[in-house]
Amino acid sequence: MNKAKWIWHPGSFELYHSMLLHNRRTTTRTYEGGVRKSVYYYPMWRIDSPQHNVILEKKATIDKPEVLKFYANTDTANMIVDGMAYRVGSEVALDVGEHTVCLQGFKKDGFPAFYIEGDTFKTDRTYIVGGADDKRGRHAGYSDYYTDPSDNPEIFKFSYKKMHPVSKKDINGGTLFDFGKEVFGKITLENLDGKERFIALGESIEEALDVEYCQIGLNASGKSFVSDPVAFRYIFVPELTEVQASLDFEYLPLENKGAFKCDNELVNRLWDVCAYTMLLNSREGFFDGIKRDRWVWAGDAYQTNFVNYYLANDPDIVRRTIRILRGRDPITKHINTICDYTFLWIASVWDYYLHSGDSDFVKDIYPEILDMWAFIEPRLDDDGMYKRQPDDWVFIDWSTFDSNGPMCAEQMLLARAYECTAKYATLVGDSAWEKHASERFEYIATEVNKHYWNEEKGAFIDDYKSGKNNVTRHANIFAILFDYTSEERKERIIKNVIFNDKITKITTPYFEFYELDAMCQIGSYEYMTNMLDSYWGEMLRLGATTIWEEFDPTKKGIEHYEMYGGKYEKSLCHAWGASPIYLLGKYALGVKPTSAGYKTYEVKPNLMTFGKIEGIVPTPCGNVFVSFDGGKCEVVSEIDGGTLVLRDKKYPIIKGEKLTVNL
Amino acid sequence: MNKAKWIWHPGSFELYHSMLLHNRRTTTRTYEGGVRKSVYYYPMWRIDSPQHNVILEKKATIDKPEVLKFYANTDTANMIVDGMAYRVGSEVALDVGEHTVCLQGFKKDGFPAFYIEGDTFKTDRTYIVGGADDKRGRHAGYSDYYTDPSDNPEIFKFSYKKMHPVSKKDINGGTLFDFGKEVFGKITLENLDGKERFIALGESIEEALDVEYCQIGLNASGKSFVSDPVAFRYIFVPELTEVQASLDFEYLPLENKGAFKCDNELVNRLWDVCAYTMLLNSREGFFDGIKRDRWVWAGDAYQTNFVNYYLANDPDIVRRTIRILRGRDPITKHINTICDYTFLWIASVWDYYLHSGDSDFVKDIYPEILDMWAFIEPRLDDDGMYKRQPDDWVFIDWSTFDSNGPMCAEQMLLARAYECTAKYATLVGDSAWEKHASERFEYIATEVNKHYWNEEKGAFIDDYKSGKNNVTRHANIFAILFDYTSEERKERIIKNVIFNDKITKITTPYFEFYELDAMCQIGSYEYMTNMLDSYWGEMLRLGATTIWEEFDPTKKGIEHYEMYGGKYEKSLCHAWGASPIYLLGKYALGVKPTSAGYKTYEVKPNLMTFGKIEGIVPTPCGNVFVSFDGGKCEVVSEIDGGTLVLRDKKYPIIKGEKLTVNL
Repeated sequence: MNKAKWIWHPGSFELYHSMLLHNRRTTTRTYEGGVRKSVYYYPMWRIDSPQHNVILEKKATIDKPEVLKFYANTDTANMIVDGMAYRVGSEVALDVGEHTVCLQGFKKDGFPAFYIEGDTFKTDRTYIVGGADDKRGRHAGYSDYYTDPSDNPEIFKFSYKKMHPVSKKDINGGTLFDFGKEVFGKITLENLDGKERFIALGESIEEALDVEYCQIGLNASGKSFVSDPVAFRYIFVPELTEVQASLDFEYLPLENKGAFKCDNELVNRLWDVCAYTMLLNSREGFFDGIKRDRWVWAGDAYQTNFVNYYLANDPDIVRRTIRILRGRDPITKHINTICDYTFLWIASVWDYYLHSGDSDFVKDIYPEILDMWAFIEPRLDDDGMYKRQPDDWVFIDWSTFDSNGPMCAEQMLLARAYECTAKYATLVGDSAWEKHASERFEYIATEVNKHYWNEEKGAFIDDYKSGKNNVTRHANIFAILFDYTSEERKERIIKNVIFNDKITKITTPYFEFYELDAMCQIGSYEYMTNMLDSYWGEMLRLGATTIWEEFDPTKKGIEHYEMYGGKYEKSLCHAWGASPIYLLGKYALGVKPTSAGYKTYEVKPNLMTFGKIEGIVPTPCGNVFVSFDGGKCEVVSEIDGGTLVLRDKKYPIIKGEKLTVNL
Repeated sequence: MNKAKWIWHPGSFELYHSMLLHNRRTTTRTYEGGVRKSVYYYPMWRIDSPQHNVILEKKATIDKPEVLKFYANTDTANMIVDGMAYRVGSEVALDVGEHTVCLQGFKKDGFPAFYIEGDTFKTDRTYIVGGADDKRGRHAGYSDYYTDPSDNPEIFKFSYKKMHPVSKKDINGGTLFDFGKEVFGKITLENLDGKERFIALGESIEEALDVEYCQIGLNASGKSFVSDPVAFRYIFVPELTEVQASLDFEYLPLENKGAFKCDNELVNRLWDVCAYTMLLNSREGFFDGIKRDRWVWAGDAYQTNFVNYYLANDPDIVRRTIRILRGRDPITKHINTICDYTFLWIASVWDYYLHSGDSDFVKDIYPEILDMWAFIEPRLDDDGMYKRQPDDWVFIDWSTFDSNGPMCAEQMLLARAYECTAKYATLVGDSAWEKHASERFEYIATEVNKHYWNEEKGAFIDDYKSGKNNVTRHANIFAILFDYTSEERKERIIKNVIFNDKITKITTPYFEFYELDAMCQIGSYEYMTNMLDSYWGEMLRLGATTIWEEFDPTKKGIEHYEMYGGKYEKSLCHAWGASPIYLLGKYALGVKPTSAGYKTYEVKPNLMTFGKIEGIVPTPCGNVFVSFDGGKCEVVSEIDGGTLVLRDKKYPIIKGEKLTVNL
């Protein structure tokens, strides 16, 4: 029997923790008199909070008696069993037969949550929102992390361990501490002199020693000082040499079930660095980067979700991330204000379903997706294509586009959002939306090929109305990735865009993800492995212990740390850089679901440039181990439904039995 | 120079206190084993909460230097002056010239609020919502009650005084305390025996002694016990005779500026009882009744606002009440779920403006009214008339209507809402809505006269589609009150409906308000004074110390206390019963504004059935004193713009000078 779960108004848990985390960003600025201050930096989008009243109810018939024990974190609450009200702490015995349990409560701060020990009536998703609530009829919110009556859903379940610097040295009249790699948590400084003092932090030595321009710092006072949680690798305490530093490292203890090894040590190290980058950014939801914003961004999360499916494969963090991004009604802006991020958010639910098989969540989030469309559709142009609206941030990537008009890449993401929505509609049995979304998808995909394809350039252009016929990689990559154009055009894109050095190179790991995913899909594995070496590998050779937000190999020294006009504003630990884990798992180990939740799946190993590979891909119900050296291939799987594909031959994988194929 | 005010996101103060107050209702029920429990009873509509992030900003040019001192109640906050961030507690000197002050903050619980001491940049309504907020560009929220840096806007400013019972007696083996009239606050019981014990409360002796069925009770324990705030006149402590009771009476110290005396002592006493009923129900907003719900209802408040204009004339409580009722976006249900209450809410802003002249508030609330129309209009029928929708509570009054179809009274209130909205649109300069609302108003008023008028009955009928041709007083009263029909039809209504005993009488003071207001408008003052005696007077003769929610003179004894299926569920202190204060002020003293905010006003005393009258009507800028005995009329006014009208003669009223007219 499963344990009960704490339950709440759907989304409350995520709205609450999202509110807290999005209000924690600090930045350091220099003010009059040279005083450096750490000030709060608030998001440029609306930050929501949970509602404080909730009614959740369940009706069921039981065929054996059970005893309910009622817990709640509320200020006031009733458990109403068959019309009779009980207070928190009550135990109620139910006889066989039909019963109705209604949980009502109010909590002024935080959010109300309930827990009932019982059998059929134990709290879980099967409770339904009742009363006059806007979300009446929807399932209760829950988290796999909160299953014990002693849990407090308002305290996020991080783990902690004490850490000490790996080195300490006197420099510039002060003390520089190095923790060996980027870390996050509360810093304790001891043996200070009691003076108010600015403490500089850095992801790089240069940043930490640049007291005037470092991005994050602390205004310490007293003889000893404990900071709020911050991210850094280096701490520089000016003017003092006898000071001590330690850290309460704060992290989410996700188990990395996925693994990858090959005969290229740089790639192996890269995998570990990517996994560590993920660890630091896997928290209440998936963060973009751990130093600067520590916010949840839908485009970043879209990719981090994929990495997760090949690393920890934790469904709860994906669900949380999706709900954090959704926010609360009314929807008045795009997610993170970015239109492409809204479209990717919609699409992300499909990939979650494909990798988890969690149709419950699709059903739970479906009405929230339709509400998102109710925001999007009135803002489309007369043809139903994306049109830039005031307040829309058209992002796509940190690159230069012909972006004043309606961009090709946005239309493709809109098409993708419709394509996925049609599948959700099928799943929940909404035939009207299935038809509508399919039609819109087909229409937009066709129109994009009609208008944005430039025959002369042999490529999709950013904007066909501006007359500039500007070609960037981005829309062309989407066309391959989402299979939105003909094979003939794909060939031309590869020649005219991907392998064309005149087309501006991708500088963010963000878009490298899409580029490499697209190239792997069409079998250009070497393009990927080359990029692992020349792009990610180059970061490692420059000393990266986590993956950077952006990387331009043509830059030098501390130029690498500059971004957004700040000398060290770039994040050197950015989750969107962890895609090699996904790419190697999906395309080298070759493991991917062929139906939702790995009910069926394929293992199609590709040696690429490696002499041998081995690793594990986690699935919702067990791991798949693969090793391959070009001759011998071994697969051991904990789940049914798999097929090994080697040189066009297929071998069924039997759960729990080692499958060995010698080519 | 005005003092600064605490400011916040518009509506936050009201949303916060509304959330608290709407979660305080308790009711008493008997459960298994005869145990009586006081349990929480939550509203059947969504209870909102304030947002926790806010950005408020102001740009201005100053011609003399000033010093800003920054206060905030937040967890984190910045005051950004000309791009430079300051923390809470900072003092910043500004030179002459242009400056920008931006206040950003986050508060996890409660709501964020700021206060700046300064001159031009002191905090007040002139700060504007900034950032990516949904309400960007709107004015800051504020309350006239919170003007000191030491204020805490999360603590509502009630006053307290210690009260003791006026009598105590041993009865039924226990002790009965009588406080002399209905009171509200925390009860202290001393000299208890320590056992857990149910304490019965009552608005009547019968209720307090009926331990099994009383509506409100306390689950006391310990030797001494302090309750949550409750309303009652009587306390009955069963089984104990040595117990002591006292009360911390909690109230809002509004000054009753209005006054009325005449030679009818019953009417004078009634005025005082109405004023005391108002005192108990004037709190965070105007409540319906103090014993049972203690909630804010738009129809009740619509009337209480009018009474306020002739009693305390506090504009802040009206603004608060309007904002509490509005709630937060998105609007998904009618206010209190009642369609007529939504329409009355819209209309109430006009009456507030007329009596206060506060055009700022009309401008502030105007976009929220338009959002309300965005909810209403898609739910109207093809002709734009009101049509009952699922979840709509069609109330009008506690009476029996032919109410399955679209009721006449609802159309009239819809027309009234459009009529008032057209005026708001004029005031804010929104010509599109001025035209739209005027047209809709004219159309609906015409259609109502076309379809709902029944020539045979000589009256408006509830529903012209049902075939029942049912006549009730309600729509007919609205037709007169809002002047929505011809003089000829009004005459027929008076004969066929008002003075027709076959038409069910009004049983609630709620609708008596509308009936008497309508009758006074057409000069039938005697109908009003007769009703003061036969209806309100009868309650007083039955011992009422506050006005009841409903009164049916045909009932007897404790039948009067029954309602909603509960023996004592009726409220015996219901604000909608206080209308005599309004009616006597407006029609006997005859004082009313003839333009917004009493810029011009009329004093037209009517002796009615009284031999002499005197009293005070408060206006936004001063009081108007009137006395009249049929011969001599005296008016002393603290404001300009008045005209005394006596027997069709007009006399200008000079501010500060006694005007005496001898007829």
